Amino acid sequence: MIALEEIRHISVVSPSKIVMLVIDGLGGLPDPKTGWTELETASTPHLDDLARSGICGLTDPVSPGITPGSGPGHLALFGYDPVRFAIGRGVLEGLGIGFEFRENDVAARGNFSTIDGRGLITDRRAGRITTDECAELCGLLGQITLEGVELFVRPVRDHRFLLVLRGEDLAATIDDTDPQRAGVTPNVASATKPSAKHTADILNRFIGKAKEVLAGHAPSNMILLRGFSKLPHIPSMGETYKLKPAAIARYPMYKGLARLLGMAIFDTNGGIEEALKVLTACYNEHDFFFVHVKETDSAGEDGDFLRKVRVIEQVDSALPQLTDLKPDVVVVTGDHSTPALLKGHSWHPVPVLLYSQWCRPDRVEGFSESACASGGLGRLPAVDIMPLAMANALKLTKFGA
Amino acid sequence: MIALEEIRHISVVSPSKIVMLVIDGLGGLPDPKTGWTELETASTPHLDDLARSGICGLTDPVSPGITPGSGPGHLALFGYDPVRFAIGRGVLEGLGIGFEFRENDVAARGNFSTIDGRGLITDRRAGRITTDECAELCGLLGQITLEGVELFVRPVRDHRFLLVLRGEDLAATIDDTDPQRAGVTPNVASATKPSAKHTADILNRFIGKAKEVLAGHAPSNMILLRGFSKLPHIPSMGETYKLKPAAIARYPMYKGLARLLGMAIFDTNGGIEEALKVLTACYNEHDFFFVHVKETDSAGEDGDFLRKVRVIEQVDSALPQLTDLKPDVVVVTGDHSTPALLKGHSWHPVPVLLYSQWCRPDRVEGFSESACASGGLGRLPAVDIMPLAMANALKLTKFGA
Repeated sequence: MIALEEIRHISVVSPSKIVMLVIDGLGGLPDPKTGWTELETASTPHLDDLARSGICGLTDPVSPGITPGSGPGHLALFGYDPVRFAIGRGVLEGLGIGFEFRENDVAARGNFSTIDGRGLITDRRAGRITTDECAELCGLLGQITLEGVELFVRPVRDHRFLLVLRGEDLAATIDDTDPQRAGVTPNVASATKPSAKHTADILNRFIGKAKEVLAGHAPSNMILLRGFSKLPHIPSMGETYKLKPAAIARYPMYKGLARLLGMAIFDTNGGIEEALKVLTACYNEHDFFFVHVKETDSAGEDGDFLRKVRVIEQVDSALPQLTDLKPDVVVVTGDHSTPALLKGHSWHPVPVLLYSQWCRPDRVEGFSESACASGGLGRLPAVDIMPLAMANALKLTKFGA
Repeated sequence: MIALEEIRHISVVSPSKIVMLVIDGLGGLPDPKTGWTELETASTPHLDDLARSGICGLTDPVSPGITPGSGPGHLALFGYDPVRFAIGRGVLEGLGIGFEFRENDVAARGNFSTIDGRGLITDRRAGRITTDECAELCGLLGQITLEGVELFVRPVRDHRFLLVLRGEDLAATIDDTDPQRAGVTPNVASATKPSAKHTADILNRFIGKAKEVLAGHAPSNMILLRGFSKLPHIPSMGETYKLKPAAIARYPMYKGLARLLGMAIFDTNGGIEEALKVLTACYNEHDFFFVHVKETDSAGEDGDFLRKVRVIEQVDSALPQLTDLKPDVVVVTGDHSTPALLKGHSWHPVPVLLYSQWCRPDRVEGFSESACASGGLGRLPAVDIMPLAMANALKLTKFGA
């Protein structure tokens, strides 16, 4: 991997266009009955065509054996070392709902949760209350005032909310109050560095007041906080790659992350066809396009092998809408694997396909985990995909004389 | 990749011999009519034999997507991380013409260029004057004297020259005076660190005098300087690998780089046959041999697919001269790809072949980009080749107990 600072020195502006189609949780595991993964089960004539004309491989989002969250998975795809550029959960949650952070704000991801009479957690998610209920409760918590700090409480989805503290001398080096299991009391907010003691005190006062406010609102009678974090310093894709990037995504987290990297955000409310209509509409105005498909991951998380197969087939059917635009470079991959058999993100490397006029095709005849394993890209870290896409778009000059 | 410092601890002297044949710009792209690259088009029975008995792979000189200059490409082949051991443009230019640097010399690459009456650059390359004209102008600039510093001005080629400052307290942390575009005035030499202010002052005085000297010499009426640099501190191959290395090369840049790494330099003025005669002549005196073939790269740069094919075939025909010496390890690769279709260096990984008695052969049946893509070496960074060669020569002991 070459550092972003080096890329910045060799990247140049050019009219060529790159489309990166991220099929979330794309990689899978074989159904024991057939020996085929979700992608191998799906009928994908267009992706197979593209794999034949392009070059394929398997990519490790973080490194072999590491199961990435969505944040690190996507950062890596955009060429940002996900270990170096760690984004805290709190900030990620805030980005997801479009919260406009200021430097030094401290964010946390919150859960409404249920405690019993002895203060023990009985449900970390308060029975997964509705987003409307969550919004109402956030309204109540938002009325809490504490001296010397500004507070923001925003609903995210279901039982999830965002807490942001704004003020002087705040630090994010604070342990989670969420113990990640029921049957115990919530943890007290505690500073992991002396400089965060002031912030921990504020948080504990806030939690105390929140508990009072929520007392009559069971099952949402307590809050749990985790992922205390500040906005990281990340150079934009404009600075790094001299691109004018656009994100076409439906879900807040992906839009938030894209915004953090300086992408213009284009909302889409439907499936892949809708997303590709949006792509077509904004195609002239940008030169890099991140198109996000979430439903593969959701189906994988639900353990629904066949639904994941169907979503992949929908993506394949719509693919000509993308290729008809004749982008100079097309990348199709995922941010991680989500095998239906594991019902969650996994560490398995993800199929990746790169098409351009200059890609030096390999002998891969279709887009699948097995075929990609013998592809010309080999097995590569995800952070290398973006430099490859840039190179194939002829947007990188020589490194050194 | 393991650091050089570690290699140094485990390398041992032994009588075994390593020959590294660097076919410059070896990697290519397929001719759209045949689907075959230059190497795949060439008839290469000897290389194919060697590939069958050896182990093959594809190597990335710097990292995937990065197009290396010749300096970084070769440094990597010799096991030196080309990002860590960056050689400045000025120094590389000097090495290229065999300038004998002393420690702390500051070198810059210069362009003769044209400015108009208002001082705006109209041609950064002074109409690409001939090397003879360049030499004459360098003679004039070489007569400039400045107190406290020794000046060297040497022609390189066309409009390009080398400037070297020698003296006390010189620093190379100076921004380019070449703004890299026409229509603006040249930049003033400015120090990027306070310690370079003295050097920047000297440079600005030199540029002022150069402008006076060149006043009547339009289109060469100005100079532009870039790539200010000092000789980097690079441990020699002797220190690192305990080798007694030799370089057999024709072009100055490669000889200069080899000298920097402590190789003994053996000139060759002809093609591969001549080079291999030199190899035979010095074979007893050394244990590592870098044999450089430049013409593949030149043909690629010229976009001459068939000439590149012919040069590869010449190398193949001469190969028995090399293998008849029965080196313990033979490595055949390139410092980067230079596809005739792109008429320049490219980012594509380079075929690499390693033969030794101990190499654990793979199933590769011929030496080509496609075959190497499924070779036993996989896709590997070029800096890993040298440790592999050393290991196969049984010149590396165990790492750790």
